[in-house]
Amino acid sequence: MNLKDKIRVISDFPEKGIRFKDITTLLKDGEALHYTIDKIVEEIKDKEFDLIVGPESRGFIIGTPLAYAMKKGFIPVRKPGKLPAETVKLQYDLEYGSDALEIHKDAIKPGQKVMIIDDLLATGGTLRSTVKLVEQLGGEVVGVLCLIELMYLNGRETLKGYDVRSLIKYE
Amino acid sequence: MNLKDKIRVISDFPEKGIRFKDITTLLKDGEALHYTIDKIVEEIKDKEFDLIVGPESRGFIIGTPLAYAMKKGFIPVRKPGKLPAETVKLQYDLEYGSDALEIHKDAIKPGQKVMIIDDLLATGGTLRSTVKLVEQLGGEVVGVLCLIELMYLNGRETLKGYDVRSLIKYE
Repeated sequence: MNLKDKIRVISDFPEKGIRFKDITTLLKDGEALHYTIDKIVEEIKDKEFDLIVGPESRGFIIGTPLAYAMKKGFIPVRKPGKLPAETVKLQYDLEYGSDALEIHKDAIKPGQKVMIIDDLLATGGTLRSTVKLVEQLGGEVVGVLCLIELMYLNGRETLKGYDVRSLIKYE
Repeated sequence: MNLKDKIRVISDFPEKGIRFKDITTLLKDGEALHYTIDKIVEEIKDKEFDLIVGPESRGFIIGTPLAYAMKKGFIPVRKPGKLPAETVKLQYDLEYGSDALEIHKDAIKPGQKVMIIDDLLATGGTLRSTVKLVEQLGGEVVGVLCLIELMYLNGRETLKGYDVRSLIKYE
């Protein structure tokens, strides 16, 4: 199955000039969704880890079926104010302004091995922040796995030193 | 496994007087997450359907592993402005103010059978709106499944006529 065929490219979303990779066309195809998760399992089966961490909210869409398939726990990283217990918060810069992400303080025990999952590696800002949050809690990031990688944005530069993998690449 | 033991209750979140049911403690337990999804599969195995629909964003957390386990497609229902293609939008009232949800116009073909999934049935507003969006596209709602039901809020009243089921009940 060629997964790229299942992804719809939408021009000028969310802003003019951006060719948005819409995964909802892949998700609504039960065979394609199942195949995608199985392919990710295959891609990271050499890795040992305790937990999967995924940022809000498309990281949930890829991360939780993967957690189910691999019998791992799942930790959500969320926008501020969404997680109900005590959190660690990290602010990060965007092109215009800034954004922030949070993780529950007790989500990860020091020394636990973590695989970070998201749908998209673009400039890498969200994933870099997710790595930092995991490490602030003492977790060890064994890898970063994205369904889609926009190679021309060179996001993996911001994740230097980490094992970054992706299933679908746009040159 | 008693799933209620895996859920953490947090007082006064997001507002004073609310005892928030925090499922992140269940999610981070790989065994419990796997058991939960398998229990939901068991709970709805008498139902025939083509697609699973879940509202942002905890509906994604329950809905996508279920879609994987049952080899069904998954359709996200999102807050306005998040879905990139043409959408149908529904505004609904909250206690103070209003909120809105969207679904992609081409997400469901008329006549397709749909199971709606969310983590929580509280007052039923989000789920009622999700049902309406599915029906606006011509989908047939065969059931509504929630991980948690707050019986004392009587949310299933707003879903009268639908087959509403839940795994964990708070009286």
